[in-house]
Amino acid sequence: MGKVQIIEIKKSIYANNDMEAGKLRQELHNRKSFMLNLMSSPGSGKTSLVLRTIEALRNEMSIGVMEADIDSAVDAERVASVGIPAIQVHTGGMCHLDASMTRQGIEAMGENPMDLIILENVGNLICPASYDVGAAKSAMILSVPEGDDKPLKYPLMFSAVDVLLINKIDAMHIFDFDVQAVRERVQKINPKLQVFEVSAKTGAGINAWADWLRNEVSIWKG
Amino acid sequence: MGKVQIIEIKKSIYANNDMEAGKLRQELHNRKSFMLNLMSSPGSGKTSLVLRTIEALRNEMSIGVMEADIDSAVDAERVASVGIPAIQVHTGGMCHLDASMTRQGIEAMGENPMDLIILENVGNLICPASYDVGAAKSAMILSVPEGDDKPLKYPLMFSAVDVLLINKIDAMHIFDFDVQAVRERVQKINPKLQVFEVSAKTGAGINAWADWLRNEVSIWKG
Repeated sequence: MGKVQIIEIKKSIYANNDMEAGKLRQELHNRKSFMLNLMSSPGSGKTSLVLRTIEALRNEMSIGVMEADIDSAVDAERVASVGIPAIQVHTGGMCHLDASMTRQGIEAMGENPMDLIILENVGNLICPASYDVGAAKSAMILSVPEGDDKPLKYPLMFSAVDVLLINKIDAMHIFDFDVQAVRERVQKINPKLQVFEVSAKTGAGINAWADWLRNEVSIWKG
Repeated sequence: MGKVQIIEIKKSIYANNDMEAGKLRQELHNRKSFMLNLMSSPGSGKTSLVLRTIEALRNEMSIGVMEADIDSAVDAERVASVGIPAIQVHTGGMCHLDASMTRQGIEAMGENPMDLIILENVGNLICPASYDVGAAKSAMILSVPEGDDKPLKYPLMFSAVDVLLINKIDAMHIFDFDVQAVRERVQKINPKLQVFEVSAKTGAGINAWADWLRNEVSIWKG
């Protein structure tokens, strides 16, 4: 546990992010480390979802978390408080991480390879969608209070991820949110998208998500 | 009413955004048009708040709305459906508007100056904070489901605005949100910040916000 490590990111030194991301992904594959890139709007429940995922999988695999933010270390502190290695990456005002910035974070996590590295990206539905960070798979959260129109407004993000987690389903009764409409909208943008309905607050739906992730980690490790 | 006009924004041609923003603000002042720059995360209720603001003020002043998004025209269509002139600006994938992009939108609104132009900026707590668009005043929404830690994570946005609207207070009973903590956090970042607690859904608190805006428009018109 202890104090959270904070990394002030240096400016990206690689012009070709895609190449750098591919290289990082291969290195992580070689060391049997599965990295998940988790993205969403601010306040959709990324850190709570990370904590639920840790709870579901920590007895089966080693897990590390990289939190990316403009400022503060509140998210990394929440993760560290449950005894999971967490580092906080500060992006220097930038609204995304790229592969080289992600590499700096992974290097700061130390030599011991984790089975699962969860990267909680900057809270943003736009910038992170354009940057391959070298993750094995990527997921996004759409929370019920944000509304069911988001796939129409941020199609790139919905097309760039492997998984959509619809979070805060416990709040469905007080918001006008049409799950079926979201499913139809994302189906058009990204037919292969896996969709899970969850509540990081109550734990509902977390098992199905953890099953998917467990299986992907297992495939990755070969 | 009729069909919503969609503007595909051209690349910014002015290097000095601050100078361009100052020029636009002066021009709007000369024609007695008050522009409000409204910012927030995706799904915090910007369009619903715009509709409540229209409802409160439309009998006293002429109002026009500029919606900025990556894609779709759903927001502009909601505004147009209540009979208010609305244009949709598409940012070409960019996560903010600058002053020159805003000018293109205002020019598309036509010759007739509005008393109040509401610019609903791109849903994002990072990029728009760095760009002066030439508005008379700027406001941001933080919605209750997003959490009370947002001033810690996005201090630039909270320091860049004149008003903070805490929205979705009707959902307070199901979220763990400490209004007093938010007030203390923003006080440190931005001591002059005006804070209103509202629900765009129920209409609670809208009158106090509309009173503030009415007064500012009146001062601006001189």
